[in-house]
Amino acid sequence: MAALAKTSGGRFFEDFRLDEEIAHSTPRMLTQGDVALYTALFGARFAPFASDPFARSLGLPRAPIDDLLVFHVVFGKSVPDISLNAVANLGYAQGRFGALVYPGDTIAARSTVIGLKENSSRETGVVYVRTVGRNQHREMVLDYVRWVMVRKRAKEAPVAQERVPDLAPAVPPDQLLVPPEFNVDRYDTTLSGSPHLWRDYEKGERIDHVDGVTVEEAEHMMATRLYHNTARVHFDGFGARQGRFGRRLIYGGHVISLARALSFNGLGNAFRLLAINGGRHVGPLFGGDTVFAWSEVLDKADIAGCGDLGALRLRLVATKDRPCADFPDRDAAGKPDPSLLLDFDYWALIRR
Amino acid sequence: MAALAKTSGGRFFEDFRLDEEIAHSTPRMLTQGDVALYTALFGARFAPFASDPFARSLGLPRAPIDDLLVFHVVFGKSVPDISLNAVANLGYAQGRFGALVYPGDTIAARSTVIGLKENSSRETGVVYVRTVGRNQHREMVLDYVRWVMVRKRAKEAPVAQERVPDLAPAVPPDQLLVPPEFNVDRYDTTLSGSPHLWRDYEKGERIDHVDGVTVEEAEHMMATRLYHNTARVHFDGFGARQGRFGRRLIYGGHVISLARALSFNGLGNAFRLLAINGGRHVGPLFGGDTVFAWSEVLDKADIAGCGDLGALRLRLVATKDRPCADFPDRDAAGKPDPSLLLDFDYWALIRR
Amino acid sequence: MAALAKTSGGRFFEDFRLDEEIAHSTPRMLTQGDVALYTALFGARFAPFASDPFARSLGLPRAPIDDLLVFHVVFGKSVPDISLNAVANLGYAQGRFGALVYPGDTIAARSTVIGLKENSSRETGVVYVRTVGRNQHREMVLDYVRWVMVRKRAKEAPVAQERVPDLAPAVPPDQLLVPPEFNVDRYDTTLSGSPHLWRDYEKGERIDHVDGVTVEEAEHMMATRLYHNTARVHFDGFGARQGRFGRRLIYGGHVISLARALSFNGLGNAFRLLAINGGRHVGPLFGGDTVFAWSEVLDKADIAGCGDLGALRLRLVATKDRPCADFPDRDAAGKPDPSLLLDFDYWALIRR
Repeated sequence: MAALAKTSGGRFFEDFRLDEEIAHSTPRMLTQGDVALYTALFGARFAPFASDPFARSLGLPRAPIDDLLVFHVVFGKSVPDISLNAVANLGYAQGRFGALVYPGDTIAARSTVIGLKENSSRETGVVYVRTVGRNQHREMVLDYVRWVMVRKRAKEAPVAQERVPDLAPAVPPDQLLVPPEFNVDRYDTTLSGSPHLWRDYEKGERIDHVDGVTVEEAEHMMATRLYHNTARVHFDGFGARQGRFGRRLIYGGHVISLARALSFNGLGNAFRLLAINGGRHVGPLFGGDTVFAWSEVLDKADIAGCGDLGALRLRLVATKDRPCADFPDRDAAGKPDPSLLLDFDYWALIRR
Repeated sequence: MAALAKTSGGRFFEDFRLDEEIAHSTPRMLTQGDVALYTALFGARFAPFASDPFARSLGLPRAPIDDLLVFHVVFGKSVPDISLNAVANLGYAQGRFGALVYPGDTIAARSTVIGLKENSSRETGVVYVRTVGRNQHREMVLDYVRWVMVRKRAKEAPVAQERVPDLAPAVPPDQLLVPPEFNVDRYDTTLSGSPHLWRDYEKGERIDHVDGVTVEEAEHMMATRLYHNTARVHFDGFGARQGRFGRRLIYGGHVISLARALSFNGLGNAFRLLAINGGRHVGPLFGGDTVFAWSEVLDKADIAGCGDLGALRLRLVATKDRPCADFPDRDAAGKPDPSLLLDFDYWALIRR
Repeated sequence: MAALAKTSGGRFFEDFRLDEEIAHSTPRMLTQGDVALYTALFGARFAPFASDPFARSLGLPRAPIDDLLVFHVVFGKSVPDISLNAVANLGYAQGRFGALVYPGDTIAARSTVIGLKENSSRETGVVYVRTVGRNQHREMVLDYVRWVMVRKRAKEAPVAQERVPDLAPAVPPDQLLVPPEFNVDRYDTTLSGSPHLWRDYEKGERIDHVDGVTVEEAEHMMATRLYHNTARVHFDGFGARQGRFGRRLIYGGHVISLARALSFNGLGNAFRLLAINGGRHVGPLFGGDTVFAWSEVLDKADIAGCGDLGALRLRLVATKDRPCADFPDRDAAGKPDPSLLLDFDYWALIRR
């Protein structure tokens, strides 16, 4: 039995303890190689991340790494400890991005178990973790909460103390962190690819991002491995044939990145993610499906002390095999259109 | 209707004006990450681009970036403004490569509308643009003409002044630009992978490049996104099912890069593209097809002031699912063999 | 016929001469771009290769490149000269890794023909080569023997002098090369991702690596091109339809890298390959198949002069569409389970 002892099968629900702190393993250096792959996989064109000269025109030393690539790596680091036995990734809240990440920086992550709630079936439970990613200088790069439904090893296993955390519906604007080095005096809207600034968007406005992108199995597996995300449902097609969907399930974060890249067409100046207010993976995505997206402006806010910058609170909705010209959504009862994949709520930084 | 105003659907034929200059957005820094992806996608092995020591043996500071990767990025930059509503990419002419591009350089591009001609159907028209790509020092890296058939928004829309430009059938040898830093005294044909130099090729000679390479959907989409090329026909498999071909169309430039990489076997020392004389995408390529290629030596030329260097004018022909041992071509009436994908005419630099 | 003379169709069996030395072409610089692709394709998480700070904690200047990526590039360099006409890659022996390779290093390779043996059919023969890869400082990075079955151009062709080399069944521990810069005093098993060190493994112990990973055509072709491996059986789906398997055959080295990445779960601290004792590709792998793996501890050894380091001799077995909880293997007569893909024997470095 020495053999089994060497491999990790991941924690089950009854293995988690409230307030436990978990240091995740294998810190991951991000490089220009990762940036190129991220570009090849999603095609994001937000200018500050694509060009050193453009980044320098904003006061940065060079082009930082796309916020969502940072998100995926921080998320990936937590998977072996948190969600290897997850049935579903249920939601995100209270996410804030901190220091910009540059090629050559190394990301490590720790999580704290902030909530535990067994389901009535006693076969699964919901685990809430707050995960903090830091660079090699121990500066926070991302701090967010996610909750996942995790299998129990044994139905009858007793469960330690339970708690459902109180999560904010959104990050208040005065808690958004804007890297102080940003200076948008020389922000060039010809080079950025969009003329539309903070003042041009209005609350309630909806934007169809027009384009669709089909996802191949090779793409989502390469992306997910790039983040060191080891959740086997994304990789094992043989095992999946006996599973719930009969096929590999695409990592939910893949949809976020695809939809965000599509949103460049309409939101080209909303370049920096400041916060993740909330997010739900409404439906599963599979190889061969085509993703479309639309956005809604939920709110607008000033950035204290930054007269030239503002924040847009955006709702990003992604669909499967369904163009978004008519903004497919939930019905009056809250039931989502069957095409819905993602409902994601975030704050973005944009020039006023 | 604010929503629609925010996204760009691209210019239609009647939106172009003769002599209009268009500054393309989102400059793109090229890095060693892009080089690695280009290698993984095409497998080109031309030695100066694959090794710093080999590049230094030619007088360069380090390995530059493959000319076709530069071409694709300059092309990609122009797509959102020029060819988002293109029906077909019709041809290339008068292309000259200038300064070498190195990892860390940022490429931006501008186009001038040099020709417009409505088609008799009044549903489309041909747009001729001259696109110039520059690095961050404003040095020209590529200057070329392409023409595309672009849809009209409305058949009855009036069309501005028309003109069909006079395009040279080939770049004359005395207009080829050879980076002055090249010194081939120490050019090592063992390391370069081919013993055949300028003197060994004769006008009219044909070379079968032997190998075939099958293209997967994931590959061409990753390549095309890498170039920031946003033409939706390459990505939206859902929309394509209702389209002309019933499936995603592969970016024509993908065929150029595949055929050029195959041509290493036979033309291993023809490492630098000097000019694109002309090029036609004869047929469409789809995922799962296999590409083969052959070349013909159209001409040979001296390089003024460079006793050790010469130029070969090469015709590169690519086919689909058809090996090229017997050089499939056009018939006497000019009708292409049904396997033909590409007919590309370029000047390459090679040691004499 | 000048055309045919320009392309290389590769050597046939009768073209090899005993003791011949072959300098392989197109040295290949490895970069952080290649590292990112390797991560995306295999998902290896061994900490010293993934993070500069972790590498520095071991006394290294920064993160070196994964040993198997080096192996594949050295192998790839030899393909155009050795195995373009190979029917099968039969085995490996006497492999030793030398200097660590860092991003920016350029790898070149030379092979010596150390054995030749015609098969009784006279249609093929076995070629044994010793291939040595070196960096730009001419330091050895890998020195190994492989043998391949190569087609004859003509059955009746006479064959030069024959010899079957005497190959060691394993590299003796006192010949393992440990880079002297390694210092594991500060080796952190929380960051490395596994608590299990040399002392925790016992001879005969078997480890199921649990996870499975499905391989897509795009992935193995991208990987194989990344290594400059030009063997056409991996790329030409059109030609393959008329071939032995009716489809593209995946490069055997792809299985080694997949299985090694899976083995992180159970062998997370066995980070450095010291030697390849032997290896056989037992069965072919195709696109769509799922790879599983298990390991057996064959032996344990001290590292002379390194009190803190030890070596594990490991057998890595990979299977196709067959989880490894019960360790599928050969039967008493030596006949392999039909699921077997790979039987690979290596020494790995690990903290004691």
